[in-house]
Amino acid sequence: MRGTVLYGPGDVRFEERPEPAVLAPTDAIVRTSATCVCGSDLWPYRGANPITQPTPMGHEYCGIVEEIGSAVKTVKPGQFVIGSFAASDNTCPHCQYGYPSSCEHREWISTAQAPRLRVPLADGTLVATPDVPSDELLPSLVTLSDVMGTGWFAADAGNVKPGGTVAVVGDGAVGLLAVLSARQMGAGRVITMSRHESRQKLAREFGATDIVAARGDEGVARIKELTRGVGADSVLECVGTPESMTQAIQSTRPGGSVGYVGVPHGVTLKGEQLFYSHIRLHGGPAPVRRYLPELIDLVLNGKINPGKVFDLVLPLERVADGYRAMDERRAIKALLRP
Amino acid sequence: MRGTVLYGPGDVRFEERPEPAVLAPTDAIVRTSATCVCGSDLWPYRGANPITQPTPMGHEYCGIVEEIGSAVKTVKPGQFVIGSFAASDNTCPHCQYGYPSSCEHREWISTAQAPRLRVPLADGTLVATPDVPSDELLPSLVTLSDVMGTGWFAADAGNVKPGGTVAVVGDGAVGLLAVLSARQMGAGRVITMSRHESRQKLAREFGATDIVAARGDEGVARIKELTRGVGADSVLECVGTPESMTQAIQSTRPGGSVGYVGVPHGVTLKGEQLFYSHIRLHGGPAPVRRYLPELIDLVLNGKINPGKVFDLVLPLERVADGYRAMDERRAIKALLRP
Repeated sequence: MRGTVLYGPGDVRFEERPEPAVLAPTDAIVRTSATCVCGSDLWPYRGANPITQPTPMGHEYCGIVEEIGSAVKTVKPGQFVIGSFAASDNTCPHCQYGYPSSCEHREWISTAQAPRLRVPLADGTLVATPDVPSDELLPSLVTLSDVMGTGWFAADAGNVKPGGTVAVVGDGAVGLLAVLSARQMGAGRVITMSRHESRQKLAREFGATDIVAARGDEGVARIKELTRGVGADSVLECVGTPESMTQAIQSTRPGGSVGYVGVPHGVTLKGEQLFYSHIRLHGGPAPVRRYLPELIDLVLNGKINPGKVFDLVLPLERVADGYRAMDERRAIKALLRP
Repeated sequence: MRGTVLYGPGDVRFEERPEPAVLAPTDAIVRTSATCVCGSDLWPYRGANPITQPTPMGHEYCGIVEEIGSAVKTVKPGQFVIGSFAASDNTCPHCQYGYPSSCEHREWISTAQAPRLRVPLADGTLVATPDVPSDELLPSLVTLSDVMGTGWFAADAGNVKPGGTVAVVGDGAVGLLAVLSARQMGAGRVITMSRHESRQKLAREFGATDIVAARGDEGVARIKELTRGVGADSVLECVGTPESMTQAIQSTRPGGSVGYVGVPHGVTLKGEQLFYSHIRLHGGPAPVRRYLPELIDLVLNGKINPGKVFDLVLPLERVADGYRAMDERRAIKALLRP
């Protein structure tokens, strides 16, 4: 089997890898129907996280169960499943509290850009669909593994309420799906910060009501202008840089919420500024497993179509082209078909 | 009239000051029945905030309205009132959203350690009691002006829920009243971090179920031990130092909440640590005005007795002794009687 391996900044290879096998009785082997390149894959691709050894890549996946360990009870070979990027037992106190991505036995999935992968803690990580879905649903279903669930968490952590005013910082795939999520949760107004025409267009399709191209202090001033000087009720931070976090905090009204899902790089927050901003702050790795049943229903019932974020579809073996296109912002997100 | 003025670190004087007068039609003049020294007064007293000129002090007060401006409608001379440490119009969007301490027209009260004070925005800031209360209720009523409302906000911002497990960092008056607040909101278990016997005793009176004397990493480990390795549902940070904030964040379970009300001094938070901690963070200057009606009821009905935090009662003119006793931690909190 060949799979995706990152050797260093800009150096993605699709090369021979060992076949995955059941190692623990709680494992499952999944044949990948679709996988993709995540915005967070670009951090190490761009050298922001050091690569000390060749590193298998990929944590978004859906597909057919091929094999299960002896302890697996809730999924069986032949079923179509979607799993979180964070494997979880779904029974520990953190899982029961709604935070499976902080499971006491959490393992990060990291070999999904391949035709097959081993999923640990299969019972707690995978959710099966009632039937094997048709091919055209695969793009939307694979987003539930991370990017859509992460946009949903941004909106949830940001306390989006029916009728509320939401601002989204970041027009990557997560930001765009945060727009979709906010609208799905009933937001009255969704302001998207974007300066790319194709992304603005998709944001509008997903329900954005206003577009702000300005950034930094100017962007904050624009949000204030659009909200009669008040600030947004909810701001969804979907980037992870010091600039985007500052912009998010300053755009939020006192008592309002910042939901942040961009993995922070170089972000430090000053206690005093945070104190006087009066905002609520919540975020982290999205508890995707918690959302999977609801989001699968929304996709299968045609209520949401998050698969629209894929503006590039490649055969899996051309994964390196997917990274390159996303790195150069030629593509919003690349779908990979084995 | 004489009033309290801070000249520099450790230098509090009770000296001749101009009589307060109605300056704007929305002002009221209040004759102080009780005032007190706040933990936050100790920051400048200890030199943590620079004093560039002689600074009048005091922001906790209750008393009798003596005079009102022509636009004041909701309070009248002769009424007993309690007001927030932050004057607010109680009508702007931030007030209506529940955050009067971020009012668009906010003014900080800063001359309350005196026999009389001017309260701006009287209609939005002051709440009158049905009758002039008896003398023995004054200690509890004056706490509602800040310290009790701040402890209450810590518990509210920390999402304390019936049956939940709460840890309180800080055994000053705010921390102790956060214990009282958490119990009043139905917390099942309240762990107080304290190493002072008199404060531990009062914490238990207020409803603490467990006392942890350890601090720092050891304190965090103890909270984890007490919660089967999980962490507390809510942690109430009532100090404002880097150490106390770190301890609060690390003691909280994923998905749990830190309510922080200690004014941060030198606190910086690392984005990545916050992200993976999965906590909710909310705090700031307490929206005391929002809580006043409910807390006044609780005091008048004998449901809470927050005045117990005063273990030192002084005539107002001995205010400097009050600062000194609190600075040296000989007193939890000093009540000043004009």
